[in-house]
Amino acid sequence: MSQNKEITIYDIAKSLNISPATVSRGLKDHPAINKDTKKKIIDAAQKMGYRHNTFASNLRRQRTNILGVIVPRLNSSFTSDVIAGMEKTANEAGFNLVISQSLETMKKEVANANTMFNNRVDGLLVSLAYDTTDIQHLENFINKNIPVIFFDRVYDHEKCPSIKIDNYKAAYEITAHLISQGCKKIAHITGNQLRNVYQDRFNGYKQALADHAIPLNEKHVFINDLSGKAGAETAEKILYMNDRPDGVFSANDTCAINCMQVLMKNGISIPQDIAFAGFNNDPTSTIIEPNLTSVNYKGFEMGEVAARILIGHLNNNYDLQLTHTLMLRHELIMRDSSLRK
Amino acid sequence: MSQNKEITIYDIAKSLNISPATVSRGLKDHPAINKDTKKKIIDAAQKMGYRHNTFASNLRRQRTNILGVIVPRLNSSFTSDVIAGMEKTANEAGFNLVISQSLETMKKEVANANTMFNNRVDGLLVSLAYDTTDIQHLENFINKNIPVIFFDRVYDHEKCPSIKIDNYKAAYEITAHLISQGCKKIAHITGNQLRNVYQDRFNGYKQALADHAIPLNEKHVFINDLSGKAGAETAEKILYMNDRPDGVFSANDTCAINCMQVLMKNGISIPQDIAFAGFNNDPTSTIIEPNLTSVNYKGFEMGEVAARILIGHLNNNYDLQLTHTLMLRHELIMRDSSLRK
Repeated sequence: MSQNKEITIYDIAKSLNISPATVSRGLKDHPAINKDTKKKIIDAAQKMGYRHNTFASNLRRQRTNILGVIVPRLNSSFTSDVIAGMEKTANEAGFNLVISQSLETMKKEVANANTMFNNRVDGLLVSLAYDTTDIQHLENFINKNIPVIFFDRVYDHEKCPSIKIDNYKAAYEITAHLISQGCKKIAHITGNQLRNVYQDRFNGYKQALADHAIPLNEKHVFINDLSGKAGAETAEKILYMNDRPDGVFSANDTCAINCMQVLMKNGISIPQDIAFAGFNNDPTSTIIEPNLTSVNYKGFEMGEVAARILIGHLNNNYDLQLTHTLMLRHELIMRDSSLRK
Repeated sequence: MSQNKEITIYDIAKSLNISPATVSRGLKDHPAINKDTKKKIIDAAQKMGYRHNTFASNLRRQRTNILGVIVPRLNSSFTSDVIAGMEKTANEAGFNLVISQSLETMKKEVANANTMFNNRVDGLLVSLAYDTTDIQHLENFINKNIPVIFFDRVYDHEKCPSIKIDNYKAAYEITAHLISQGCKKIAHITGNQLRNVYQDRFNGYKQALADHAIPLNEKHVFINDLSGKAGAETAEKILYMNDRPDGVFSANDTCAINCMQVLMKNGISIPQDIAFAGFNNDPTSTIIEPNLTSVNYKGFEMGEVAARILIGHLNNNYDLQLTHTLMLRHELIMRDSSLRK
């Protein structure tokens, strides 16, 4: 038999000398077919290499059972946790994930969205690229009632629910904590203010300073791409400052840790000279010495929730409009990098 | 207009008062259609929400342009690098990735393989689960000439190429390095010996000992799941030993680092009392103090190569049989956790 010929229920029927209708029912576990016949049919199907035509049957149903996911980068600790949570939930519900990364550029995000549109994903889960200015590229989905859900780096759109944490509150708490440890000159390292996560954290930081009557020093605000390299460069800048900060709140852990490493190599004591806090609670935060104070933000759970809401909507159990913004819990974890007392 | 009605080339033709054939050609950038008409067609298509029926056209071509990926876990530093490399290469070549995780069980790996088979992926990229004993679940693909490529945790099968590093040689080098630093009692922490990566590393370790006339002490061989928790537990065992090792080679960095942390908290000096080496060169290896000696093993590159070979085969440029085993370069990176001199 040719290896490329597709086995059909007719081939199975012929080989067992029964009717194609019986084979079809047997494969679907229909109660009218007796157990022995079912077993014979399933064994023959297995042996002959029959595959259910999920693909064509989805086409008929106008459904692909594929969820599209667009993230900035796949290789970050937080993102890989999110994807793992999404995959687990989708897999259990019989959905597949098609995954793409924007590599932090709007241009690639637009191209990926178009590919997903043409491939007819049933829904889209998106965390925006660093420089995305608008979501024109998602209008096609929205106009067709293909659900789009934002997570982490979200966009305010009446038809698209968002899943995030309270970044403002978390940043407020972390800044207030540094103040409680005696810091009076707290620097902030953050990312592109187009993205809610960085803007909200910056605002929370500013409000905490204001509420404690500490003036904002613009020289102590560093906006960069929050990479490890940017953290090391920020440390070099801090070392050359006449008016050094006595605390640093970085909008992610990677940047915080690389900054700490350079400062410590240059004789700065942490937390005595400069207290440190990061964000995300990456596994690295308990490896650096002193361990890094951070905000725990459960990526795996965020992925599970995002996939669950999307699938629930597709299966008509949830109304997307009702859950407009879903705020997950965060938790401030205080460690030795900021605890002076 | 109903939001759910699919826009066809006939709708576009009608709205522009031109023939459907012209619309079809215009969308395909056919040279016979003039520039202005093309622009009109593309603008109308965009405005009306037309989507190319990639899905149906793939069905006709008996091709989905989807590559299936099965990995043990998505949330590991190494795996997320691999996936990022695969996505980049696939995306550039117009392929999509469907990704699933076995969560380290053969049972889930089997279920995922079946789903991918029914969804008609064009090819499969697989790294095996911890306890997979055979690849019966991939025979359907092999019998149908759907290419299956193994990476990292591979399986020896005449029809399936493997992409890996020389785990034996890398482990030999790392063990010989520990011996060169004066270690005479080197412990080894490893995983399930069903998996080539752990078996090969164990064999490399044993051969290096033998070549330096150091007898293998079975009490110094720890087989576990190589998690952080297992690393901490191994440290507890080492602390209670009368005959403690003076060097540890762990088959991954996570386990090594957690083991080091517990030992150091209990007063053990690294590398003076016990020298340490891991495997993978995770980002954490340069955060732990002392920095961890490790084997650099480029996940991103492995992902790129695996996807490139698979796509090359699908596009009939490569013969899979010819590249049976592809060995990528590794590199021993010596750091303070093992450098005594």
